[in-house]
Amino acid sequence: MLDESRNEVSSQVKARVAVLGAGSWGVALGRSLSKSGHEVCLWEIDPAAARTLEVTRQVADKLPGVHLDDSVGITPDMGQAVEGAQFVLVVVPTRFFENTVKTLHQVRPDLSGLDGLLIASKGLIHPGGKRLSVAAGEILGASPPLVTLSGPSHAEEVGRDLPTALVAASDSETAAENAQKILMTSRLRVYTNPDVVGVELGGAIKNVLAIASGISDGMGFGDNSRAALITRGLLEMSRLGEALGGRPETFRGLTGLGDLVVTCTSRHSRNRKLGELIGTGLSAAEAIEKIGMVAEGYYTAENVVDLEEKYDLDLPICREVYRILYEGKNPAEAVGALMQRERKSEDGF
Amino acid sequence: MLDESRNEVSSQVKARVAVLGAGSWGVALGRSLSKSGHEVCLWEIDPAAARTLEVTRQVADKLPGVHLDDSVGITPDMGQAVEGAQFVLVVVPTRFFENTVKTLHQVRPDLSGLDGLLIASKGLIHPGGKRLSVAAGEILGASPPLVTLSGPSHAEEVGRDLPTALVAASDSETAAENAQKILMTSRLRVYTNPDVVGVELGGAIKNVLAIASGISDGMGFGDNSRAALITRGLLEMSRLGEALGGRPETFRGLTGLGDLVVTCTSRHSRNRKLGELIGTGLSAAEAIEKIGMVAEGYYTAENVVDLEEKYDLDLPICREVYRILYEGKNPAEAVGALMQRERKSEDGF
Repeated sequence: MLDESRNEVSSQVKARVAVLGAGSWGVALGRSLSKSGHEVCLWEIDPAAARTLEVTRQVADKLPGVHLDDSVGITPDMGQAVEGAQFVLVVVPTRFFENTVKTLHQVRPDLSGLDGLLIASKGLIHPGGKRLSVAAGEILGASPPLVTLSGPSHAEEVGRDLPTALVAASDSETAAENAQKILMTSRLRVYTNPDVVGVELGGAIKNVLAIASGISDGMGFGDNSRAALITRGLLEMSRLGEALGGRPETFRGLTGLGDLVVTCTSRHSRNRKLGELIGTGLSAAEAIEKIGMVAEGYYTAENVVDLEEKYDLDLPICREVYRILYEGKNPAEAVGALMQRERKSEDGF
Repeated sequence: MLDESRNEVSSQVKARVAVLGAGSWGVALGRSLSKSGHEVCLWEIDPAAARTLEVTRQVADKLPGVHLDDSVGITPDMGQAVEGAQFVLVVVPTRFFENTVKTLHQVRPDLSGLDGLLIASKGLIHPGGKRLSVAAGEILGASPPLVTLSGPSHAEEVGRDLPTALVAASDSETAAENAQKILMTSRLRVYTNPDVVGVELGGAIKNVLAIASGISDGMGFGDNSRAALITRGLLEMSRLGEALGGRPETFRGLTGLGDLVVTCTSRHSRNRKLGELIGTGLSAAEAIEKIGMVAEGYYTAENVVDLEEKYDLDLPICREVYRILYEGKNPAEAVGALMQRERKSEDGF
């Protein structure tokens, strides 16, 4: 399986991959890996849901028509899923991330044989704002190598084999390249990137800006407003991300700009939807109630504003989102505040 | 009117502005200037169209419901339009740009009293690829100061007072600030930028990438593909634009990224439409015939590929667009070529 001398996975070779989390992104990635000839086992915590998936081979409500091949294993038993796996892909909702990794550590204490733990969940740990790879490292120790997967990737589109580009970010170049090798197909292009900090932060901060974009949509604004929000928002993401150690070029890449564009224009994004409801006149609490859960960006907005103060940055869009979410500020006043700041040069912020 | 000591226009003061070109963008900008209290005269070359606009106060086919106030003058006589104007705004289609500026020079040979010639047309002169401010400077000489207006701005949205952000770029900081002062409203935020080269190139190169985005749409691809095209396309825009002297941050700003996002996602863009038709199977010639005219990006693709060779750059998306447009390459093969290049790191291109 491995070229032991270099610890690199051959691009021709087939791996055994455990996918922890059978939501739409887990199913889409599991299906893609299986179609590439890898041996895939999906773990779903809910035995009833696992059984349904095993029988129907699809997540009918989220990815109708996207079928898993019969060779894909499905189990509610994590120990069974990860046994003998060369790669473990964690793709549970962020709020379950730490517990999932802890369980992994319990069911397979020796992960030294693993070529990579791939993290496809996105966001920051709440409360506190810890990055996922940091949380995983604290639970698992130095091994296995961690790889963060991110980029503009609606599961529905990957499930239909529409062309998509992803990023595999890791401190370990070999681990990133191994992830690239097992994931890359003629419809899924994977780039490596050494900047884990930037990749993780971009995937989190974009959710705050997606709320802003949704508010703009909800207020009846148009493409001009959204494009300006994306552009000026990317500057805010970069400012904050660079202050925290991310590389400038990462924020301009697929996991920063690319994911920001997809999320701000997507009808599927829960964060954008939260903003849209607020833009139409609901309070934050009413909007959260209507969606039925708290969108990631709600928490991240608080982290971002804390960091803005700590690092003495100027993040006017994120700050207005925070005020709307947490202080009940009227969105129309927030827009006025953004549009009527003193005249500026473009790079002067 | 002017604070003569510094030649700066007071933000409280009202100016006389001639708007050359009464298409949708000219009408939207003229309306906005008039609402701010400036004295506006629109020039429309076609006397019949000018008369219709004068009576109906709207461009019914392009901007229905967007009305010009009775105070806005409308004339087919450019001499009358520009007489006594402190600012002249040129907003004709790019192919008429040089002739319009030549006529301006004839009807008002002494432009030294002008606080700025504002260029809102976008694209490069065909053939040759000259930037518009260069062409204007060659016709008019050193005076008046030139200001390029650009950014993500559908005329329909500015005409409905939806929030929009623009950039005023000039070698003269005073001229850029004067343009900012007369144009800025509570719904139209204007940033200054000293990088004329970058602003003009971004507004031209984005049209080639809009064709690529349209091809992707026409082939039935989704948001993931478009986000990847925008992200990787922005890298190509920056590479070429920086080689030609533009500043990196300009391409990440409103006139680069912002305008790229709007054009790649717009149903109105002629360039995106050209690509879309090609993506559904038409040849470039058939698509051009169906649209009824050649979109700017068609010419710009040729300029870009010439420059790619001259400066030894790697612009794979632009190159595939060129091959599809000029060499009849099959779009599916072009996508394959882009997706299946060797595995890369994200910043390695």
